[in-house]
Amino acid sequence: MRKVEFWYEFASTYSYPAAMRVENIAKIFDATISWQPFLLGPIFKQLGWTTSPFNLQAAKGSYMWRDLERTCMLNGLPPLTRPDPFPQNSLLAARVALALPDDGPRAEFSRSVFTAEFADGRSIDDKAVLADILEKLDMPSAEWFERAAEPDIKDQLKAQVARAQELGIFGAPMIVTSDEELCWGNDRLEDGLRWETDHCE
Amino acid sequence: MRKVEFWYEFASTYSYPAAMRVENIAKIFDATISWQPFLLGPIFKQLGWTTSPFNLQAAKGSYMWRDLERTCMLNGLPPLTRPDPFPQNSLLAARVALALPDDGPRAEFSRSVFTAEFADGRSIDDKAVLADILEKLDMPSAEWFERAAEPDIKDQLKAQVARAQELGIFGAPMIVTSDEELCWGNDRLEDGLRWETDHCE
Repeated sequence: MRKVEFWYEFASTYSYPAAMRVENIAKIFDATISWQPFLLGPIFKQLGWTTSPFNLQAAKGSYMWRDLERTCMLNGLPPLTRPDPFPQNSLLAARVALALPDDGPRAEFSRSVFTAEFADGRSIDDKAVLADILEKLDMPSAEWFERAAEPDIKDQLKAQVARAQELGIFGAPMIVTSDEELCWGNDRLEDGLRWETDHCE
Repeated sequence: MRKVEFWYEFASTYSYPAAMRVENIAKIFDATISWQPFLLGPIFKQLGWTTSPFNLQAAKGSYMWRDLERTCMLNGLPPLTRPDPFPQNSLLAARVALALPDDGPRAEFSRSVFTAEFADGRSIDDKAVLADILEKLDMPSAEWFERAAEPDIKDQLKAQVARAQELGIFGAPMIVTSDEELCWGNDRLEDGLRWETDHCE
């Protein structure tokens, strides 16, 4: 079965609608999704940025919030709640996601984190919020936090960032096809799946 | 008849496919397009940028060129030629476009400039190239250059940039609906026309 990678960052605004849509689009193309959490912070830091470009450029930021609000409307998502502060610290959520197996639980957890953050306005750097998400999904939170804190998961997350940079990833979300074609943004999910279908074995 | 503004910059890469598509999309929505050339340079300068963000961020730039190549393929445009240098100096083209009436000639000229730049690899800051474009469209080039050099056209272009900033425009292309909703990028043309149809009188 065809498989594409979905690279996402929990603090990234357009990763939210993309995470909610990507499995449905994959189904249309008879493909599956490999969920690849990573961090944009270290990549932005190398460009000399200390925060999101949406905070650094006021006009672009205010456009983005309005556009994201419209995107939620057009995609049948709950009314947008702006995370406060923005961007959220996504380190713990990314580690937990990476600890969870990528055959369902990681995707379920990730969608719930995005919903908590962008629909319910909850703080995703709050361990209690993530515990609540895990428990509601019948995932024992103590166990997964313990797993997420192990050195190999920390190393895996660092390796994710390094691989993202090798692939040329500079933002999120990003579809990476099996021939390493990049398709950036919630707008490019369909193009990414189409590329995999038309150009890959 | 419904009318939306299409804000574009001749040096902007995604303004090219957008300029080629926008009238067809408007037709579907039974709307017309008001062509609004402007310059991004002064807006970038205020952010401290001396060139295009695609030059300032290598990974984003190399993604953009590949994505634009794919966009040309998907939209039946000729194979992409990368302008050299990039970005091109678009001042003269913008002045000529602004001098031309917005009931057809401005759109025709603008599409021809984009094709010369991104399909034929011609230098759009070369007066001879613009003269050739004008003559092929049966527009007397000497006359239009003279008009483009008049102080009121220069002032109009400055006013365009000022209005762009007032509207919150930070990039191109941009659809601006009659209620001043902004839709950014070649990806958002349809959304812009749909917004005008659904939300404006």
